[in-house]
Amino acid sequence: MSDLLIRNLRPMANDACDMLIENGRIARIAPGIDAPGVAIEDGAGAIAIPGLAETHTHLDKTMWDMPWYDGRKGGTLQDLVDNERHSRIPLGIDVHRQAMRHAIRLIRTGTTHIRSHVDVDTDHRLSLLEGKMRARDALAGAVDMQIVAFPQSGLMVRPGTAELLDEALSAGADVVGGLDPSSFDRDPKASLDTTFALAVKHGKPIDIHLHEPGELGAFTMEMIMDRTETEGLQGRVGISHAFCLGMPDQARVAGLIDRLARLDMRIFTTGAPSATCPSLLALRAAGVKVGIGCDGIRDTWGPWGQPDMLDRARIVGMKNKLRRDEELVALLDTATTGGAAAIGIADHTLEVGAPADLTLVAGETLAHAVVETAPRPLVVKAGRVVARSGEFCVEGVSMP
Amino acid sequence: MSDLLIRNLRPMANDACDMLIENGRIARIAPGIDAPGVAIEDGAGAIAIPGLAETHTHLDKTMWDMPWYDGRKGGTLQDLVDNERHSRIPLGIDVHRQAMRHAIRLIRTGTTHIRSHVDVDTDHRLSLLEGKMRARDALAGAVDMQIVAFPQSGLMVRPGTAELLDEALSAGADVVGGLDPSSFDRDPKASLDTTFALAVKHGKPIDIHLHEPGELGAFTMEMIMDRTETEGLQGRVGISHAFCLGMPDQARVAGLIDRLARLDMRIFTTGAPSATCPSLLALRAAGVKVGIGCDGIRDTWGPWGQPDMLDRARIVGMKNKLRRDEELVALLDTATTGGAAAIGIADHTLEVGAPADLTLVAGETLAHAVVETAPRPLVVKAGRVVARSGEFCVEGVSMP
Repeated sequence: MSDLLIRNLRPMANDACDMLIENGRIARIAPGIDAPGVAIEDGAGAIAIPGLAETHTHLDKTMWDMPWYDGRKGGTLQDLVDNERHSRIPLGIDVHRQAMRHAIRLIRTGTTHIRSHVDVDTDHRLSLLEGKMRARDALAGAVDMQIVAFPQSGLMVRPGTAELLDEALSAGADVVGGLDPSSFDRDPKASLDTTFALAVKHGKPIDIHLHEPGELGAFTMEMIMDRTETEGLQGRVGISHAFCLGMPDQARVAGLIDRLARLDMRIFTTGAPSATCPSLLALRAAGVKVGIGCDGIRDTWGPWGQPDMLDRARIVGMKNKLRRDEELVALLDTATTGGAAAIGIADHTLEVGAPADLTLVAGETLAHAVVETAPRPLVVKAGRVVARSGEFCVEGVSMP
Repeated sequence: MSDLLIRNLRPMANDACDMLIENGRIARIAPGIDAPGVAIEDGAGAIAIPGLAETHTHLDKTMWDMPWYDGRKGGTLQDLVDNERHSRIPLGIDVHRQAMRHAIRLIRTGTTHIRSHVDVDTDHRLSLLEGKMRARDALAGAVDMQIVAFPQSGLMVRPGTAELLDEALSAGADVVGGLDPSSFDRDPKASLDTTFALAVKHGKPIDIHLHEPGELGAFTMEMIMDRTETEGLQGRVGISHAFCLGMPDQARVAGLIDRLARLDMRIFTTGAPSATCPSLLALRAAGVKVGIGCDGIRDTWGPWGQPDMLDRARIVGMKNKLRRDEELVALLDTATTGGAAAIGIADHTLEVGAPADLTLVAGETLAHAVVETAPRPLVVKAGRVVARSGEFCVEGVSMP
């Protein structure tokens, strides 16, 4: 929790001014602030925005900076899941090291909040969670990290997994994960009953990967909504991907979105170019809180991805055919304040009193800023400079 | 046409060796070549690939390095077209300057061949073509540029345009363009008859933008194929976008692809995340020559895009769900040798005897190379170094 004076920045692309940070919070925004003895940074007239919020990724999976991996598979989701589970140890994917590499790159590109899934399965048990929790501890103060205990290999189809999720939630995981209760877990009722029971038992929110397309996905989504309502978990349940909301039947989609909004459920989208995706603007217009995320980055699943939320915002923007400035501003909000709200961070703004979690960005206007991918000049977390000119600069923590 | 010895490169990711270039062509590839008096470059062990082939872009449209433009429109294709046509002069989009900016960035990122559309309409007449031809002349020897005379504002719907296309083809345009003969031009028979008559008259190939989706696009595509067959223009007709080939009816699509292959027609795709797109692998498997392109880059239409063919390859790869190494190698081929073949450049390889048009790239393997977006260490056009470490270095030509 640091004090800092940033001179000559443009909060939300408004006029240049200074920002005084005290005890890790924004204390004053005005021209020509005088704060004797406080450390000073020069904003050089750059736009300041709240830090980027990465709301859907997998820090335990990346092979970034490891030798090129030539064993990726095509085929079904099951093939990809099995290939990864069988490969982690032979390939030497050290979760702590890789999570550090991934998270530090996200910090360098302006991210101040991360929600990351971590695989919990009967082969690896809680070992991946442990590695990731060490990364979270090592980066405490540099980035806020929520960990989702994620049954990547299935819940009902792999007996023993529910018990491990229970342990993971006791051990420090923040969110109960899920994966395609119908198409992958083959028993949507039991799968969702188990997931919701864990959430109620631990008092923790839910975030379910739902790749199921079309009417199958809509069916499962309705089962999730039913339980959200019955259990009184309004505001506590999120659905990642939600590809079914990209189906062509617009009236059907509108009905689903309306109920999502009434239950204050959250949607996390990666803008997957190869899939049907929910409409960012339709969700936001209905009042659904939406976050975006990079998903997996160069892992055993696929070679693509960059650990940069503005790069991902571009993909989400292209996927959603966003062109106009007001649409780009909505996209930037989804990548910052709106996305943070979707993972339960209510005060992620540049208002006086808010935590001083922010990044400077290139560009003339907010719309321009979301299009530019130039290095971020300065990233500040709780008033502490964590990256400068795209380089990580937290004392005592280095890139492994 | 220069002589050059590049030491320590890995052609197509094979073992490190030297490459001797004589008279602009690859003369020898072997370890330890001795060539007294010939200029030497150090490849530093990087992979060499044929230069990237940008097969679908609009060098006359970019607003790169101009003030941020906040006037983009949503709505229909007609809105976007009209907005651009009315905005070019008030916004000061100088075609020569902007085409230079765009093309030089493509060269810096390893592009040696560009096919670019240029708007021909009754407002601007041939002025945009003239500006672009000056850019082509200024960059002669640094990049090969094909210019498509493109009726962006419509052909039949804007009387006088056919005559201007005729003039443009006489004045130096290389290819006859077209735009949505049904949905935009409102008279597919007359539109296509006119387009094909111009191609026959001038002995030049055809490249038609076909955004029309589903059965409308298939209908128009069949009309294009009918004329290709009737006029004996096999190998001379390309279709850009071809969104209809992404429609769900797989048997219908397979029939269209089969006929495209038999007519040796070419498909140019940008992998548009928001649209249905043709399957790169299905087209290639059928023997259809395919190219990829960045399309417009930060123009009045939209804010997105990067002038880098590897960035675009990534989008096409994500759109096509390419994951496995052999798929990434096919993607890289499409971005180089295959794409060049689709625009009529048959010998764009790293074989001895081929023109020395190549770029070095980062990465361990070819699959890795297409995923990396690091600056290209060296770009060579006809044996001449045109960019080094991502910087353009052609004497007498500077970035405007």
